[in-house]
Amino acid sequence: MAEDKLTTRAEDFSEWYNQLVIKSDLADYAPVRGCMVVKPYGWALWENITSWLDKEFKATGHVNAAFPTLIPMSFFEKEKDHVEGFAPELAVVTHGGGVELEEKLAVRPTSETIIGHMYSKWVKSWRDLPILIVQWGSVLRWELRTKLFLRTAEFYWHEGHTAHSSAEEAKEEMYRILDIYERFCLEEAALPIIKGTKSETERFAGAHTTTSIEAMMWDKRALQSGTSHYFSTNFAKAFEIQFLNKDNVLQYAETTSWAISSRIIGAMIMVHGDDQGLVLPPRLAPVQAVLVPIYKNDAEKAKVMEVADRIFMELKAAGIRLKMDDRDNVSSGFKFNDWEMRGVPVRVEIGPKDVEKGSVALARRDKPGREGKTFVPQAGLDSAVSGLLVEIQDSLLKRATEYRDANIHDPKDYEELKKVVQDGWAFSYWCESRECETKVKEDAKATTRNIPFNQPETEGTCIVCGKPSKRKVYFAKSY
Amino acid sequence: MAEDKLTTRAEDFSEWYNQLVIKSDLADYAPVRGCMVVKPYGWALWENITSWLDKEFKATGHVNAAFPTLIPMSFFEKEKDHVEGFAPELAVVTHGGGVELEEKLAVRPTSETIIGHMYSKWVKSWRDLPILIVQWGSVLRWELRTKLFLRTAEFYWHEGHTAHSSAEEAKEEMYRILDIYERFCLEEAALPIIKGTKSETERFAGAHTTTSIEAMMWDKRALQSGTSHYFSTNFAKAFEIQFLNKDNVLQYAETTSWAISSRIIGAMIMVHGDDQGLVLPPRLAPVQAVLVPIYKNDAEKAKVMEVADRIFMELKAAGIRLKMDDRDNVSSGFKFNDWEMRGVPVRVEIGPKDVEKGSVALARRDKPGREGKTFVPQAGLDSAVSGLLVEIQDSLLKRATEYRDANIHDPKDYEELKKVVQDGWAFSYWCESRECETKVKEDAKATTRNIPFNQPETEGTCIVCGKPSKRKVYFAKSY
Repeated sequence: MAEDKLTTRAEDFSEWYNQLVIKSDLADYAPVRGCMVVKPYGWALWENITSWLDKEFKATGHVNAAFPTLIPMSFFEKEKDHVEGFAPELAVVTHGGGVELEEKLAVRPTSETIIGHMYSKWVKSWRDLPILIVQWGSVLRWELRTKLFLRTAEFYWHEGHTAHSSAEEAKEEMYRILDIYERFCLEEAALPIIKGTKSETERFAGAHTTTSIEAMMWDKRALQSGTSHYFSTNFAKAFEIQFLNKDNVLQYAETTSWAISSRIIGAMIMVHGDDQGLVLPPRLAPVQAVLVPIYKNDAEKAKVMEVADRIFMELKAAGIRLKMDDRDNVSSGFKFNDWEMRGVPVRVEIGPKDVEKGSVALARRDKPGREGKTFVPQAGLDSAVSGLLVEIQDSLLKRATEYRDANIHDPKDYEELKKVVQDGWAFSYWCESRECETKVKEDAKATTRNIPFNQPETEGTCIVCGKPSKRKVYFAKSY
Repeated sequence: MAEDKLTTRAEDFSEWYNQLVIKSDLADYAPVRGCMVVKPYGWALWENITSWLDKEFKATGHVNAAFPTLIPMSFFEKEKDHVEGFAPELAVVTHGGGVELEEKLAVRPTSETIIGHMYSKWVKSWRDLPILIVQWGSVLRWELRTKLFLRTAEFYWHEGHTAHSSAEEAKEEMYRILDIYERFCLEEAALPIIKGTKSETERFAGAHTTTSIEAMMWDKRALQSGTSHYFSTNFAKAFEIQFLNKDNVLQYAETTSWAISSRIIGAMIMVHGDDQGLVLPPRLAPVQAVLVPIYKNDAEKAKVMEVADRIFMELKAAGIRLKMDDRDNVSSGFKFNDWEMRGVPVRVEIGPKDVEKGSVALARRDKPGREGKTFVPQAGLDSAVSGLLVEIQDSLLKRATEYRDANIHDPKDYEELKKVVQDGWAFSYWCESRECETKVKEDAKATTRNIPFNQPETEGTCIVCGKPSKRKVYFAKSY
């Protein structure tokens, strides 16, 4: 895997990314336009992501269910904005079982429509609400320019779809989920993110409000890493989700939907990765530590492997996700590079001298080279490694937060804004008009990312037109 | 849910099944021909099934991965038998992103082809083998006559796909998986199954050997509940999966594939269910026990709920999957019927008298009515309920095994065979010729289910043609 040198980020960030995804064994190109194969190493990472989220969703009263992959085309017509947003991206099934279908079916690009249809059957009374359902799976959008994990025709995700009896409750749900996403990013993925509200033009097709979490990549472009939408009664009206309220009056339900996709893996790659390869946050890494025994002959091997096997059992027993790399057809140097490429947080090296001294060498992935290498006693190694994993996790978040904050600017005028968004984000007052937003897009190729919930106490003037403005927004180039 | 009376099994077994799936809240009909919506209760059951299997697969060295949902049509042409078997059942995507596709894509009916294509890229040397990959998801086959869980156009499953360097190793894998399936059925689903080899006509399209597990339903028809296939080099040749062996000679890989689908839920319904509804084996039941507080007025309610809440916490702490049914808009009788319909193994009733006596009533789902009801002390209830769950699990397997064994016949001649397969299975010597198999199918509408691994020590003569026969086979009508 790691034989060829990786292009550096400074040379060509996009090429670095493309090479890294393949070399780190996360994914491969599929023989279907724009699709990917998520390889076992990438899928193990995705399973760690999904299992944390699934646990949190269940702890907050959500349940999982499964709706069909194929959706009748007529369903998309029912919500005007939704069909405009998704119709151009659909993959369409026209034939089934050898005959042409009377009604064409779309491979789902998202499931608001078919789930809305089912909710209209299931919801009759206020007692049937709320419905808090999550679906795990994949969806398909016919993207023209694709990039593994970041933008593929088929991608993996969860989509939450909830129905409530009041607007307040539905909005609370939208924010509750965004908070779960924030905790996931901070605690698990070590991704500092900014929570906020999307502008009208950046909203999900059919939504009343779209909230998002936005992260800054190494190249300082923004990546929308999760969204949570409040639909008001838009979808309930389109799909007739009505219920008798406590006063026995027929009322439309209030709905939400929300998602984090396999794109989040792209974010982790682009925030933490370095010129040696992937750097995975310990809490999500499929392999948290790799044990590399080092020896030159059979006598050394016997001596080293005895200790290596014992240490392997000890670390395993401590709950550390562990691999022993005892391949005999590659050099130690090759192994080091290989596991660095795969982003394994900690490497434990044991050679004949370590056996004599009762020590091992620990190498931190987040600090390659001498700086990250220490020699520690074999006794108590389990707690040393566990402690180091916590330290690395914290350090990744701290580093990414500092990097982001150092690259968010407060331009003094429009000229400066146009300049800073070429290599960073601008955090500026904006009048929230579509005109000013479009002007920035045309002049500087930057879009509004979100209007963060955290706002300064003062008001200001729009950086584009100078009109009074109540809230600041992030402008940035984005993926 | 449980308001209308369920049709009894004796009246109309098929109608009983259809009603039960809906009334027990497992699934619903989707607005897409032949597809189903798996509702949260059904999906929770499926998650319990999949998590046990996933753990076993991982413990035996398997890893998960994800391949595209869409497969180029040309891939199906590469294996002659495979295309014959699947082409008539494909759903075909002809348009994507608003334009007609140059190459049509099929929604996957199974993934041997696209996975074979990827393996040919990944496998170069014997060191790359074995590959032991499992994919979890759904597949689509354009079925004309559908029935929820048993036969739907889209269904849920895992598909294991492995590649090995020798035929022996691949065959071992096929049997290893069948053993895992057997343990799942016996230990978890309480389904007695028979392991064996399928006849040539009943083989998977493209397989060298298909093994299966077969279960007997309440109506005595057979249900193929899982399959494990050995492909020899058929798919490796079609997809060019070749590797340099230890002698540096280019060689084709040996492959297998295997699956259990959401159909297994249909098997559990039809084996354990009764005229009151679903009966779920405790080890897989999403809800193992339901707590029903019983009271007539607020004073009683206060007294009863205090104890009910305490018991709820105790049982929860003991790891029992538990629901408290404190709905105040339905009667206790309604609640009893409702949870019986959903197949919850144990019901715990607490009324004012129970509070006084320090007791509760326990009702077993597998023995409805007085027979299954006991009064036990509140003290030590956690171990009483845990013990009862084990007893119910064992009892379900024992009952199903006895039922099956009582309905397997050893007909003395062909005339008797034709008769017994109308209401049971025949276990008979067979010459393994296609002619005799076809004759039984035409004369009695029964097919060969499998040639079990467990065989009598003696040989015999074919029940159809009288020629010498080495092995007995099961003949039965099937789903």
